[in-house]
Amino acid sequence: MAESNCLEQTFNHTRYQLAGHGKRDVAVLKKAFEHIDGQLESDRYGSGKVIEAFQEKMAALTGKDVAVFFPSGTMAQQIALRIWCDEKSLKKVAYHPLSHLEIHEEDGLKELHNIQAVLIGDKNRVISLEDVVELEEEVACLLLELPQREIGGQLPSFETLERISSYCREKGIKLQLDGARLLEVLPYYEKTAAEVCDLFDSVYISVYKGIGGIAGAILTGDPKFIANAKVWKRRHGGDLISLYPYIVAADYYFEQRIGKMDRYYQDAKELAALFNACHGVATLPIEPVSNMFHVHFDQSKEQMVELLSGLQQQTGIGIASYLKEVGEKTCSYELSLGDLYAAVPKEQLKSAFQLLDEKMKQKS
Amino acid sequence: MAESNCLEQTFNHTRYQLAGHGKRDVAVLKKAFEHIDGQLESDRYGSGKVIEAFQEKMAALTGKDVAVFFPSGTMAQQIALRIWCDEKSLKKVAYHPLSHLEIHEEDGLKELHNIQAVLIGDKNRVISLEDVVELEEEVACLLLELPQREIGGQLPSFETLERISSYCREKGIKLQLDGARLLEVLPYYEKTAAEVCDLFDSVYISVYKGIGGIAGAILTGDPKFIANAKVWKRRHGGDLISLYPYIVAADYYFEQRIGKMDRYYQDAKELAALFNACHGVATLPIEPVSNMFHVHFDQSKEQMVELLSGLQQQTGIGIASYLKEVGEKTCSYELSLGDLYAAVPKEQLKSAFQLLDEKMKQKS
Repeated sequence: MAESNCLEQTFNHTRYQLAGHGKRDVAVLKKAFEHIDGQLESDRYGSGKVIEAFQEKMAALTGKDVAVFFPSGTMAQQIALRIWCDEKSLKKVAYHPLSHLEIHEEDGLKELHNIQAVLIGDKNRVISLEDVVELEEEVACLLLELPQREIGGQLPSFETLERISSYCREKGIKLQLDGARLLEVLPYYEKTAAEVCDLFDSVYISVYKGIGGIAGAILTGDPKFIANAKVWKRRHGGDLISLYPYIVAADYYFEQRIGKMDRYYQDAKELAALFNACHGVATLPIEPVSNMFHVHFDQSKEQMVELLSGLQQQTGIGIASYLKEVGEKTCSYELSLGDLYAAVPKEQLKSAFQLLDEKMKQKS
Repeated sequence: MAESNCLEQTFNHTRYQLAGHGKRDVAVLKKAFEHIDGQLESDRYGSGKVIEAFQEKMAALTGKDVAVFFPSGTMAQQIALRIWCDEKSLKKVAYHPLSHLEIHEEDGLKELHNIQAVLIGDKNRVISLEDVVELEEEVACLLLELPQREIGGQLPSFETLERISSYCREKGIKLQLDGARLLEVLPYYEKTAAEVCDLFDSVYISVYKGIGGIAGAILTGDPKFIANAKVWKRRHGGDLISLYPYIVAADYYFEQRIGKMDRYYQDAKELAALFNACHGVATLPIEPVSNMFHVHFDQSKEQMVELLSGLQQQTGIGIASYLKEVGEKTCSYELSLGDLYAAVPKEQLKSAFQLLDEKMKQKS
């Protein structure tokens, strides 16, 4: 713990940081509300201009009929899966072994909805068409996460997506998009959000990843699906009297950043190349397909905490605030590029990576 | 619909309003954040100073060991009941026929938690000790709502509460307090929150009723109960990355209004007396025991919409923004007193009620 704190501490004292949009502090809210008229009325249990306007914008973006704003993606996705299971009277869904539902939700899908998850494919790669075709159990719904976050944000090709979609439609399997970071992969696919979403029956998007809002999620689909989702939202305790603090922020930062997703993607490729040029360092994927990737070091976590803490103090550039032990002699962490990268002076950046390379060589 | 809109419209154009703290608009948020430093860090999935400090304050207020902030009371209470049911391996709870869980939550308790509700007592009065003793089915938990909102905010005597609590402890029935409006009944009971909560195993309080925050709820109890509640909060999709917009507002308005609950209670008694002095008008309860009561008119909704709309236009005082049909010849609505009542000039108030009395006499 002391080591990790040391890494976090030196990170917090740096002048520049490689990843993110900046601190998650109250200023994020204040900035979003700065130009909002105090007389703007709150939404009220899902009704009102502020929520309806944003929902319409998100429905249009994803090319779906209707959208509903949720306090969280956890809630939105469990509900989407429940609706598709109920429709088919089959309480079984399929998703990747490292899906958010599998590893971060305390088994909510099972404990609350009594839905069984069939883990599909290998945890170290994205789901392939073959994985879907070879599914031995009948499922009501397949959830695909684009990009697959826990393996560095990897993607199937768009052609694979199209084939999986066709296959699922043929077999009557509903397709739910875990698009927490959907907007961040559009530059790689060279597609609009609607073109990707067209392959799916229902879509979830986060408003606080690439968009950088405070919290919240959008679920889109056909009118019957969304009408149902609103009933379940109330059952879950998600139909708050007021969701506007999240909606106003989501809308504000959406407008600020929707045009910057390609910038973040290009920056991620540039930064990954800098890491990969260092001895004993590799990114996953080697060439990013979104604004995110993982960095793997061929050294123990203990060694790397010491090395990176020193490097951060020496260079003033925040590289990592935490590390995850992978093996005895390897560790990794995640980076998602945002507004901050553009502010790092290129010369300082280059020097920092030269230093990282040298230090890694000394260690090996 | 046109009639109701007419009532809402004339209400919205009045200079003064009898009930509430004012409009639920963005100014509520802006005011709460005005003096908050932008550098204050967001809470993060339930951790961080901003959420922990408020939770500690609420635990101390209710005299419980620990508290957890929830996005909604719906979520908090379903979870409380689930925990007590799991502990007793009995999926049955008892509550009033007009409990929020029964009439406003789309059967979430059953659909999500598979818990059966036993409706206890008569819907037109509060639950008595006899109702509890005569329960024919074994239940894991009894939920009591103080005050019972849907019947005008009525209360059992404190002695009855003590007896119900003793009986439940003896019988191994857990007692959950639906204290959405708990702070509002303390002046009547002449007790501290902790003294009331001491009779219960777990307690829910809303932060946007008398307190007047934006949204959110507090659940308090013993450490094991709260640790469990946090796991369920994640399962429900309520463990948001940031809840600070609600927490900062809750804390701000708590400090503003916790000392005013007696004022609201006294005002409610004064205002109820004004209503009861009018021909064909009666409040429920006749003498309020909190800041709230219902007003019943001995006229059809249609007649009263016309009458009150005219009265609001004539006097500039907002009396009602909606009416609920009760019978063919009766209708009612709910009032919860807050900051606005004090601003109504007493002379204008008196004239308005004289006029109401005259108009009611003319109608009869």
